[in-house]
Amino acid sequence: MNIRDILASLKEGSIGVEEAERLLRLDYVQHIEGHTVFDHARQLRSGVPEVVYGLSKDPETVADIVQRAMERRDLVIVSRINDDHHAAVVARVGEDDLRYERKARMLVVDRRVKREPKGKVGIITAGTSDMGVAEEARVMLEAMDCECLCFHDVGVAGMHRFLEPMKKVLEQDVDVLIVVAGMEGALPTLVSSLSHIPVVGVPVSTGYGIGGNGEAALYSMLQSCAPGLAVVNIDNGIGAASLAAMIARRR
Amino acid sequence: MNIRDILASLKEGSIGVEEAERLLRLDYVQHIEGHTVFDHARQLRSGVPEVVYGLSKDPETVADIVQRAMERRDLVIVSRINDDHHAAVVARVGEDDLRYERKARMLVVDRRVKREPKGKVGIITAGTSDMGVAEEARVMLEAMDCECLCFHDVGVAGMHRFLEPMKKVLEQDVDVLIVVAGMEGALPTLVSSLSHIPVVGVPVSTGYGIGGNGEAALYSMLQSCAPGLAVVNIDNGIGAASLAAMIARRR
Amino acid sequence: MNIRDILASLKEGSIGVEEAERLLRLDYVQHIEGHTVFDHARQLRSGVPEVVYGLSKDPETVADIVQRAMERRDLVIVSRINDDHHAAVVARVGEDDLRYERKARMLVVDRRVKREPKGKVGIITAGTSDMGVAEEARVMLEAMDCECLCFHDVGVAGMHRFLEPMKKVLEQDVDVLIVVAGMEGALPTLVSSLSHIPVVGVPVSTGYGIGGNGEAALYSMLQSCAPGLAVVNIDNGIGAASLAAMIARRR
Amino acid sequence: MNIRDILASLKEGSIGVEEAERLLRLDYVQHIEGHTVFDHARQLRSGVPEVVYGLSKDPETVADIVQRAMERRDLVIVSRINDDHHAAVVARVGEDDLRYERKARMLVVDRRVKREPKGKVGIITAGTSDMGVAEEARVMLEAMDCECLCFHDVGVAGMHRFLEPMKKVLEQDVDVLIVVAGMEGALPTLVSSLSHIPVVGVPVSTGYGIGGNGEAALYSMLQSCAPGLAVVNIDNGIGAASLAAMIARRR
Amino acid sequence: MNIRDILASLKEGSIGVEEAERLLRLDYVQHIEGHTVFDHARQLRSGVPEVVYGLSKDPETVADIVQRAMERRDLVIVSRINDDHHAAVVARVGEDDLRYERKARMLVVDRRVKREPKGKVGIITAGTSDMGVAEEARVMLEAMDCECLCFHDVGVAGMHRFLEPMKKVLEQDVDVLIVVAGMEGALPTLVSSLSHIPVVGVPVSTGYGIGGNGEAALYSMLQSCAPGLAVVNIDNGIGAASLAAMIARRR
Amino acid sequence: MNIRDILASLKEGSIGVEEAERLLRLDYVQHIEGHTVFDHARQLRSGVPEVVYGLSKDPETVADIVQRAMERRDLVIVSRINDDHHAAVVARVGEDDLRYERKARMLVVDRRVKREPKGKVGIITAGTSDMGVAEEARVMLEAMDCECLCFHDVGVAGMHRFLEPMKKVLEQDVDVLIVVAGMEGALPTLVSSLSHIPVVGVPVSTGYGIGGNGEAALYSMLQSCAPGLAVVNIDNGIGAASLAAMIARRR
Amino acid sequence: MNIRDILASLKEGSIGVEEAERLLRLDYVQHIEGHTVFDHARQLRSGVPEVVYGLSKDPETVADIVQRAMERRDLVIVSRINDDHHAAVVARVGEDDLRYERKARMLVVDRRVKREPKGKVGIITAGTSDMGVAEEARVMLEAMDCECLCFHDVGVAGMHRFLEPMKKVLEQDVDVLIVVAGMEGALPTLVSSLSHIPVVGVPVSTGYGIGGNGEAALYSMLQSCAPGLAVVNIDNGIGAASLAAMIARRR
Amino acid sequence: MNIRDILASLKEGSIGVEEAERLLRLDYVQHIEGHTVFDHARQLRSGVPEVVYGLSKDPETVADIVQRAMERRDLVIVSRINDDHHAAVVARVGEDDLRYERKARMLVVDRRVKREPKGKVGIITAGTSDMGVAEEARVMLEAMDCECLCFHDVGVAGMHRFLEPMKKVLEQDVDVLIVVAGMEGALPTLVSSLSHIPVVGVPVSTGYGIGGNGEAALYSMLQSCAPGLAVVNIDNGIGAASLAAMIARRR
Repeated sequence: MNIRDILASLKEGSIGVEEAERLLRLDYVQHIEGHTVFDHARQLRSGVPEVVYGLSKDPETVADIVQRAMERRDLVIVSRINDDHHAAVVARVGEDDLRYERKARMLVVDRRVKREPKGKVGIITAGTSDMGVAEEARVMLEAMDCECLCFHDVGVAGMHRFLEPMKKVLEQDVDVLIVVAGMEGALPTLVSSLSHIPVVGVPVSTGYGIGGNGEAALYSMLQSCAPGLAVVNIDNGIGAASLAAMIARRR
Repeated sequence: MNIRDILASLKEGSIGVEEAERLLRLDYVQHIEGHTVFDHARQLRSGVPEVVYGLSKDPETVADIVQRAMERRDLVIVSRINDDHHAAVVARVGEDDLRYERKARMLVVDRRVKREPKGKVGIITAGTSDMGVAEEARVMLEAMDCECLCFHDVGVAGMHRFLEPMKKVLEQDVDVLIVVAGMEGALPTLVSSLSHIPVVGVPVSTGYGIGGNGEAALYSMLQSCAPGLAVVNIDNGIGAASLAAMIARRR
Repeated sequence: MNIRDILASLKEGSIGVEEAERLLRLDYVQHIEGHTVFDHARQLRSGVPEVVYGLSKDPETVADIVQRAMERRDLVIVSRINDDHHAAVVARVGEDDLRYERKARMLVVDRRVKREPKGKVGIITAGTSDMGVAEEARVMLEAMDCECLCFHDVGVAGMHRFLEPMKKVLEQDVDVLIVVAGMEGALPTLVSSLSHIPVVGVPVSTGYGIGGNGEAALYSMLQSCAPGLAVVNIDNGIGAASLAAMIARRR
Repeated sequence: MNIRDILASLKEGSIGVEEAERLLRLDYVQHIEGHTVFDHARQLRSGVPEVVYGLSKDPETVADIVQRAMERRDLVIVSRINDDHHAAVVARVGEDDLRYERKARMLVVDRRVKREPKGKVGIITAGTSDMGVAEEARVMLEAMDCECLCFHDVGVAGMHRFLEPMKKVLEQDVDVLIVVAGMEGALPTLVSSLSHIPVVGVPVSTGYGIGGNGEAALYSMLQSCAPGLAVVNIDNGIGAASLAAMIARRR
Repeated sequence: MNIRDILASLKEGSIGVEEAERLLRLDYVQHIEGHTVFDHARQLRSGVPEVVYGLSKDPETVADIVQRAMERRDLVIVSRINDDHHAAVVARVGEDDLRYERKARMLVVDRRVKREPKGKVGIITAGTSDMGVAEEARVMLEAMDCECLCFHDVGVAGMHRFLEPMKKVLEQDVDVLIVVAGMEGALPTLVSSLSHIPVVGVPVSTGYGIGGNGEAALYSMLQSCAPGLAVVNIDNGIGAASLAAMIARRR
Repeated sequence: MNIRDILASLKEGSIGVEEAERLLRLDYVQHIEGHTVFDHARQLRSGVPEVVYGLSKDPETVADIVQRAMERRDLVIVSRINDDHHAAVVARVGEDDLRYERKARMLVVDRRVKREPKGKVGIITAGTSDMGVAEEARVMLEAMDCECLCFHDVGVAGMHRFLEPMKKVLEQDVDVLIVVAGMEGALPTLVSSLSHIPVVGVPVSTGYGIGGNGEAALYSMLQSCAPGLAVVNIDNGIGAASLAAMIARRR
Repeated sequence: MNIRDILASLKEGSIGVEEAERLLRLDYVQHIEGHTVFDHARQLRSGVPEVVYGLSKDPETVADIVQRAMERRDLVIVSRINDDHHAAVVARVGEDDLRYERKARMLVVDRRVKREPKGKVGIITAGTSDMGVAEEARVMLEAMDCECLCFHDVGVAGMHRFLEPMKKVLEQDVDVLIVVAGMEGALPTLVSSLSHIPVVGVPVSTGYGIGGNGEAALYSMLQSCAPGLAVVNIDNGIGAASLAAMIARRR
Repeated sequence: MNIRDILASLKEGSIGVEEAERLLRLDYVQHIEGHTVFDHARQLRSGVPEVVYGLSKDPETVADIVQRAMERRDLVIVSRINDDHHAAVVARVGEDDLRYERKARMLVVDRRVKREPKGKVGIITAGTSDMGVAEEARVMLEAMDCECLCFHDVGVAGMHRFLEPMKKVLEQDVDVLIVVAGMEGALPTLVSSLSHIPVVGVPVSTGYGIGGNGEAALYSMLQSCAPGLAVVNIDNGIGAASLAAMIARRR
């Protein structure tokens, strides 16, 4: 019943004022819904596959979700899992279609036909402790059909360790850089100051003492005076990859 | 003197071990410098014009800087200034080339030849209090030759106020969105959940009580589960614009 | 004219269906010279009148908004204003319809016909410094047709000062209590432990030293083990009133 | 001995000044007590059953408390327990009267006669991780004789996931809504902006990085500009239920 | 007239039982034109005179309160005032009975008969910036009939500056020490480690950078491993004095 | 060598300027040491027995310390230990002289002759979770020869639960009160507002969500407007006992 | 006259032993009319002149202190002053011996004989906003007879701006570096990673948004993985200078 | 082989210029199977050996790194390891060259020829809990050829415990002091106030309640008014040692 019908019914006495009021409030939401013609599945909308966050779920729950998802979808991604989750999923659906990305703590089922890479993303890490988050980003990027170039252990404590990979990055003409760093988080600032492409900073929860759960790195990236740098939350490799893929695919 | 010369001099006795050590340490930095063939002016490197941060400088200092910069450059941008700064600059260099963007609290000298716009950026604000920061972004974007589309007062408290502009944004095919929001900062999450393009969230320091200096908005954007969203620091319109322009120009 | 009035007018024939529809929906959103988008639909949706937050706006802007709003609406409310805002509005629209609630720092235009009170709300303050926030709540409640009973300076430092008003509150059979307290914020806990009705706690930004901007009071209310207590943000008298009115009107 | 007796005794010399002073101080508290005629058991006063917080107690202590409570009361509720607590209680009192609400982490003994439901409460969760807290609220509400309607996984990341349940909520005419959300905590704001009934927001301690223990969600709800929204502490399902039941029962 | 005076007057026959009762209880609560409820009972109960907190009140309000209070009481204390408050009070009640303690930012009316000092309190400050808070404590202590011994500028940066006054303190046999310190707040720890009497630490809001509003000093005092040390809030000279007087008077 | 000897040696040439400077710096510390005639063992100085903090030490280390201490002292106190520490100590020195206070998590060896109690201290707890900290205070107080009166579970959620014990406290004429409370920490404020004796507040690390590690309770006690209240750090039962004993013993 | 001068004078016979002793010890402590206890012994002990912190003192108090100090000492340093303080001091003691270091916000009276520089300290700033703090350090260093080399505006946003001054620093063979930086505070890490000498980092309170009062810079420096870097508090130029001078003088 | 050894070998003819160059620069960066980029250049540059941070690495990874490093270097240092790491390394490379510093949680391989100590560093700890961090500093210092003097358990709670070791420190003429303290962190301030040499403060993460993870100690050291004191991050023994060695070696 649309607004005009409601008002007509009220006028002719078939409904009362209170009922009309209730129906009008309902109509408001329906009215909004009518707008949302663009509202299909998220992947259609944003091109970003949905990711199941495994951390707070027990292995059986994750196995349930994967099993059901595999019945309907070609691409299933689970993040923040461990060996127990992996085992539970294997026990349920077998190993054939599963890819367990252990360093990335991810599980991927990708039965889509091979696809052309769209865009090129560089991933730079400051130290070994940043590798897990970087891997999370890489797996996600590849699921979004981006080509990845990884440069690990590019510390700021040694200038040559920093400049060599920067040169390679610039030679490769990547579309966007993901820079992963814990501790004092200075690397994205330096990378950004030397490059001409968008940089997504990912603070990592390594460190100790004050600011040691990634806050020092996060604050540092947010305060950075280098142009072309934005950040995602601490340890959020997937968020960085989503944005980077969106940027890279525009080329 | 490069490393081999140093070592040769040491070997032939013309310098001692200590002098050699001093020279080697010096060489290390020069060696790095040899690498930095890509290290020209920042604008060359990143395509982002340098911005003079006016807030902590007195009017006379800003006038000095502008005067000297105008002697050598076609594009001079000053941010976070007020009427006093403006007056001091006018007194020094006249009004002819100056553009005072009062809402944005910026001063622009742009004597470059007219240029083709490169890329299209949408700017969405949640409320009137976010306008200043949005203007800062717009002025910076236009200085970087981006076309801007602004949608103001797109609050989350009314669904229709939110959905109408979203439709327009999607129809316009912008390359990237800057979403500016204070208070609870939910708008970038909503925008991101409905769009398929990169979103740069800018938390704004409006609000009150706990988290009221922009922290609530910042935390909210960082915790957001919407894909394709990254953030810059609170009130950092220029930072958001730099990144957005880099993204938009790749098209 | 609110939704129920429109419907009643339609039912009694003083307006037609089309006029009713126009009043209800066609004019949801009203733009004021790029400043601000009025959300007329909000009152329809939630029964809570929209409030213009004056703090971050200059007097002329507030005067603009009030003038435009008065052309179309019977009820205009502005919060967090000072004498300068008041003067600017008087200069623009005259004093006839304005009510300046100075302690509450609010401006009200209410040209609606006299209405029956719906529900009864008690407001309890811990000290004189909490009076401004309590007044903000009272003005908002009265605009929402609630009857208000105020009990000021009900400190916890003296048991008799606390028990006397509690007895009166319970005798009056109010529907809901708003308890406003700064410093250590213990009053809402005590009130809640002695009453059988919903309590809305409002922490106030009085105090000093650590936790002195209202955080101590806020934390205290959130940690409270007393049943039936929820909180709004520090100094948010209007938010507390909105919720209290919604609760009280259900009676 | 009342004040007059004390003074008389002092005057006639049977007690000294110091004793009189001590007795007067004592009288003050007794005097207060005389006021507290309304001070019966909490359940009588507020209609909210007392809940034993199990988290910090070992299984044997919880078993002790349950056993003793069951001797005197018809309704015993324990929250934040695990399987070990449950086993210890079963070992002590058998399984007959116990209801173990595992997802809610609660134990309920309810030997009261069946009662009519009073009021209707909607519970909305943003994601699966919010289910435990929502269940805690549901169990508590049912113990307070409220009818519950649950809508799970109503994420803000997809507009349709959000609007469908909102329509149902409005059709059902619930008295109050409990909205449970972690991460960025935007859901209560959206729900509140579309409904005309009181909303109690419950921030949940899911998330990661900065603000990830529920602070981002809490701050977001406190900063919300949506009318009719108040909050309880992070993960406090029972507190939300107490308030919601008090509101719903007034109908 | 305080409780003991009333009782003494009764005992010696200068007033009757009824007059004593009236003085003691009938007038516990005195309203001052809606401003403030005076808690005369507090002094009866705790022996601590009530203090009007002047900071958040304008001069006229303070003048009102003082004028009314002087009509009924022998002792009136106002804290955190400035010259404007003082002037407004003088304009209202004249200068005769007023004592303006400028360094302490306090106003005292004390028309009680001269009284014997009860107990001896030492006040130690770390630096000149702590003097205002120390003075606030001294004035309050003297109003509570305690003898005060002040030792200023007893910095920890010079051992002799610290040991000399410590010796004097111990020779004087004070009952309790108030130690006032900003910056790193180490002094109370040192004093406590060398003395055998209770120490009340008062952190002061001097300092800069991180922890510089008194938090560093507060944390330091709370973490102190020295026995016999408790703290009050930052800058709370009156709170420290209340406790110290209660301790000292027991001797 | 004192200052005059140093100067004489310099003058007569037996030492040089640099050696004189070194000796003078040394003399400065010796000079200080000369002052510290009052510097004996801590127990002599403050009457507070030293307590070994067991938490960060492994069982063997604690056993070592206890064994050695028992060779020289009559009173040995260890805090924050568990069953493993206890077992290790028993294995080393036998059970004869040991007292394991399990709830207090303390170990006491007390071979002193029976002593007269000095002073009376009341301990009030808000809930069962506060018992461990209260016990820590009791054990320490008894080791310092104070008589203890304990009142447990004196919650603020029920007025009668609060007033009954308050009456008993006042009847018993204790010298000082220790009030132990977690969650919102309102109890010390209430106790203090009704009593005329010093109160030491101990915040406890029970609670959840924001401020739930004892910060809410600590802030609340520090902001309290009740006179005669000071606090120690969160969970610091021993610190509260040290101060309380010092106060009580002065009687 | 400092300790070494006194000893030298004694050795060369221009003063006797008694005079030397008097100069060294009898007058360690000089009272200035109850204001401030000067710690002459500090300079003896640590070789660091005492600095009067002007910020929290009014101009007349500062004038008092300077006047008294000039009667007995050759070197008087006041920090954090403004033009008003300067004017008050000039009015009291004339301009002859005063040096007003305006950028450093300091006042210096130095009537000592010219002295040989001891050690060489480099001061590096990241931006113009850091200049005031750097100047504070320079003035203090020169008062401690250190030679200073200043390198301003050595930003990390451009590699060449950073490497050029680094080369000069290494060529000059300074003993220690003070690196002053606000915003993200990455400069000290970079400097430290390229140098072989001690680095003292000084975070500066420039920046905005989260971490913008110098916390981001402080955290960043504390988390830095570069060897040989320690920090002082935010804006603490004098503290950095004291340490640097102690290090440099050892050469 | 360090830089000086290489240069000496070149000078005495045991290696040629090319070999020296290869050793010095061609091999700056050594990859260990993708794990970690060793920064040999760091030792050349700063004289500080690189330390592998073991905490976030599993035992096998640490064993890999140590094995590879031992093939090319004379000095290998691993920090923050436990018994499992140690066992894994022993299983791989045997025990012959390994030194397991258990209290320091470090592993050292040092096959360099015996070297002359350069400089003398004092390490002072406040309590037993600070020993681990102090040991970490000692091991690092000795690897950098510094002589170490350790003074443990120098608490501020007893003046004699503090003054005795201070005297010894001054008699020994150390070049720099490392002062390690948790809890309230007052020791570095006291040490600094009595000494004339640089002090590096190391806050330790012992404590409890508010500020108990080392923040209280850190804030306290940063706020300290004692001259010549700088700090490193909480628990950062290695950072303190790096700086101290750089300072000491300059003598």
